[in-house]
Amino acid sequence: VRRIAVALLHYPVLDRAGQEVTTAITNLDVHDIARSAYSYGIERYFVVHPIDAQRRLVERVREHWVSGAGRLRIPDRQFPMGSVEIVSDLAEAHATWSDDHPAEIWTTSAASGGDVLAHAEARGLLREAGAKVLFVFGTGWGLAPRVHAKSTRRLAPIPSVRPDGYNHLSVRAAAAILFDRLLGNPACVSEMPRPFEGSP
Amino acid sequence: VRRIAVALLHYPVLDRAGQEVTTAITNLDVHDIARSAYSYGIERYFVVHPIDAQRRLVERVREHWVSGAGRLRIPDRQFPMGSVEIVSDLAEAHATWSDDHPAEIWTTSAASGGDVLAHAEARGLLREAGAKVLFVFGTGWGLAPRVHAKSTRRLAPIPSVRPDGYNHLSVRAAAAILFDRLLGNPACVSEMPRPFEGSP
Repeated sequence: VRRIAVALLHYPVLDRAGQEVTTAITNLDVHDIARSAYSYGIERYFVVHPIDAQRRLVERVREHWVSGAGRLRIPDRQFPMGSVEIVSDLAEAHATWSDDHPAEIWTTSAASGGDVLAHAEARGLLREAGAKVLFVFGTGWGLAPRVHAKSTRRLAPIPSVRPDGYNHLSVRAAAAILFDRLLGNPACVSEMPRPFEGSP
Repeated sequence: VRRIAVALLHYPVLDRAGQEVTTAITNLDVHDIARSAYSYGIERYFVVHPIDAQRRLVERVREHWVSGAGRLRIPDRQFPMGSVEIVSDLAEAHATWSDDHPAEIWTTSAASGGDVLAHAEARGLLREAGAKVLFVFGTGWGLAPRVHAKSTRRLAPIPSVRPDGYNHLSVRAAAAILFDRLLGNPACVSEMPRPFEGSP
């Protein structure tokens, strides 16, 4: 059976000028991606941040929903929030997820070009026995190139349907759509014949 | 050519006990659904709230990104935020969107059962000439039954892939997935053979 985890990076990611930056934690990134991941059968969600105070913030949010007052108010939320793990860098997430079997790293990007993995092919690979993958998403203006350089594969972007090519989804929306395309039931795949050439 | 608008209702929606309530504006509901809608070629996004102070809040957010400091900081955001319209109730959204041609109302729900429109069929209907539709999403625990009673069609839920049927997506994630299933390029459709029977 396929085994999937997801990581959300806050460093190294790009700002709008293409420079490497560290972004701040967005509370709804924790909630929304946890809920989407859990709903699609993803086992673990690594929130990755290099700054200790930011990691402690996510830990407090997690505890509120897993064992604190939030659990009483919205009991359903404890399951996705319980899958959240807070780590310092991608290497730590990857090592943790590879503890019993080496996991591939599949990065994501809104930019096309290069050797990308089409969604239909990705879906097929995830149905093979023993598949174990870590999906990696970036905050800000997306993952720094050196993150893609460490990946096993880079997923094709979600293509724009607009004539002007506009394609600026939030990372929360992009993650939900990719989970549905790659893991959704029933088969809902895309051959991606017309990848969008454009901005990230 | 198909013409689509989307409405996000804050009243009448349900709370977790199934009672009708009015929910507060969530800033990222405005941003995320505006960005997803615009990226998928949806023309207008009606944020629907019965309370004047809440409508003014959304108006200030919109203006910040369309003509204020936000436009300078992230110019790309002006286009989706420019498609945001703030109205008092669903009737006002529907009347506005029906100004030149009557629009159908398609409601959404995470609950299955009843006479729902499968996503594959919905996608086909949206490819017919002259299709004009208003998608309606609810905040909180979803749209009140009396909203569904006013709809032309009710869309099938996004089915769970989990053995336990867990399916608690945020409205931001659910909207993104439905836009991709119904409007995404290329054909990515679902026959929905196994609708999830469960909680909203």
